[in-house]
Amino acid sequence: MPIETRIEAAIAQAIARGQAGPAPARLAEALDYATAPGGARIRPTILMSVALACGDDCPDLSDAAAAALEIMHCASLVHDDLPCFDDADLRRGKPSVHRAYCEPLAVLTGDALIIMAFEILARVADRDAGRATALILALARRSGMPSGICAGQGWESEASVDLEAYHRSKTGALFIAATQMGAIAAGHEPESWYELGARIGSAFQVADDLRDALLDAETLGKPVGQDDLHGRPNAVAELGVQGAVARLKDILAGAIASIPSCPGEARLAMMVQMQAERIIPVLPARMGA
Amino acid sequence: MPIETRIEAAIAQAIARGQAGPAPARLAEALDYATAPGGARIRPTILMSVALACGDDCPDLSDAAAAALEIMHCASLVHDDLPCFDDADLRRGKPSVHRAYCEPLAVLTGDALIIMAFEILARVADRDAGRATALILALARRSGMPSGICAGQGWESEASVDLEAYHRSKTGALFIAATQMGAIAAGHEPESWYELGARIGSAFQVADDLRDALLDAETLGKPVGQDDLHGRPNAVAELGVQGAVARLKDILAGAIASIPSCPGEARLAMMVQMQAERIIPVLPARMGA
Repeated sequence: MPIETRIEAAIAQAIARGQAGPAPARLAEALDYATAPGGARIRPTILMSVALACGDDCPDLSDAAAAALEIMHCASLVHDDLPCFDDADLRRGKPSVHRAYCEPLAVLTGDALIIMAFEILARVADRDAGRATALILALARRSGMPSGICAGQGWESEASVDLEAYHRSKTGALFIAATQMGAIAAGHEPESWYELGARIGSAFQVADDLRDALLDAETLGKPVGQDDLHGRPNAVAELGVQGAVARLKDILAGAIASIPSCPGEARLAMMVQMQAERIIPVLPARMGA
Repeated sequence: MPIETRIEAAIAQAIARGQAGPAPARLAEALDYATAPGGARIRPTILMSVALACGDDCPDLSDAAAAALEIMHCASLVHDDLPCFDDADLRRGKPSVHRAYCEPLAVLTGDALIIMAFEILARVADRDAGRATALILALARRSGMPSGICAGQGWESEASVDLEAYHRSKTGALFIAATQMGAIAAGHEPESWYELGARIGSAFQVADDLRDALLDAETLGKPVGQDDLHGRPNAVAELGVQGAVARLKDILAGAIASIPSCPGEARLAMMVQMQAERIIPVLPARMGA
């Protein structure tokens, strides 16, 4: 079964469980609204690709890990869009959850999705309880405090920002989770997969800065110039467009070089290259040359 | 070690881990602000009491379970206090988190505490991975969708409310989690502990209605009459004060009668009685007669 099909099926199954029984109907609907149709599903695709490169000997675990990671990501988008953060009217070309429903339901949708992410992983503990709890720990570590995406967002309320910690937690954390959870799901140790995730995260940060600076609101489906508006650090502001593009190429070359030795190493390198071309519409297609 | 000491130590340890390293300082501080000093710690006290009644053969698990449950409860309070829900200025006699810090940090504090609750449980998987994942599942089920406290709060955004599902999820869910997680932590099966938790939850709902109707804002530390204000169902409105008191006594007698056979049955019955007297300041001390 193609990766895309496995990811969508695992997410849909988890959302359906969250909507079962005598659940409040609008919140149940909002769970689906917040997670489908998805964006590029980049994080679970990376996770699955790493799991496959490591042998993917227990697809139930990698399916669950991919769904949990993407659902955590969707939860963070719902909360990030809230009026007290980005106050975004649009997400993926449709109204944000608090616009389509209401602010209380957007808070609850995020909360319920965070909880669901951990429930998904606990449910596959009967396959391998050790790997399941390692997956839960990895996801928690990259999502919460002190070094997950909550920490990343929290830096934006500080007067003085630790830039390295900010970037690593804000953008890098869920990519580190992607590579490490892929390895864990397939029974490999996660340490040597840290660098690949961190580098992909850095690449996304720079790519996001480039898109933010260059594209207009219509193409992107969300307001542009948000980073500048809030005075956040930005690679384009720091290096200029050409400098940022050069940095991006460096980071991606390093990412591919960092892939640990494993059965599916060559194929994984191709996947990273493909994802890179997909996320960087501002660059010529063959940017790795 | 007394239950209270174990609970406070387990919570403090988890919060300290969440504050470590290069974490954003204000969010780190807010994690502590939201969880200490606590209220009566009723849910973890019930959890610990059930674990002790079941033999408490692995205190690391019951400590973790108690901390996880209380931290999830604190997270729900932080989010419930937000302007888009209760817009509460005060909680436990001090400014609510969004008042003391800001709204973004209150959203993030709740998110980070939810994640921390699961991390705490995953961290003790080395003691017994099966029990740890069962604890994670039980906590997720009573916290999220379709039947946890998120669902309970979600009912308040529905035009038409399933009253039974509303009460069971809004107030009952974390008490059911308390009794079931106490049993799981001590290696007992959770099913037979459902009724005790559900009945304690119902008792709290009625007690809360009574307090809300009878006490003034100064004594309670939060605005009174909230239920009436939002048109939520209310036992006092339905039955009058005397009727609600009678229902409360019935529920508590049933709760004590429902305690499954276990080594510490008699002592647990006394604890439930004591907790009941503690939470119902409007009743004469010997209300179980």
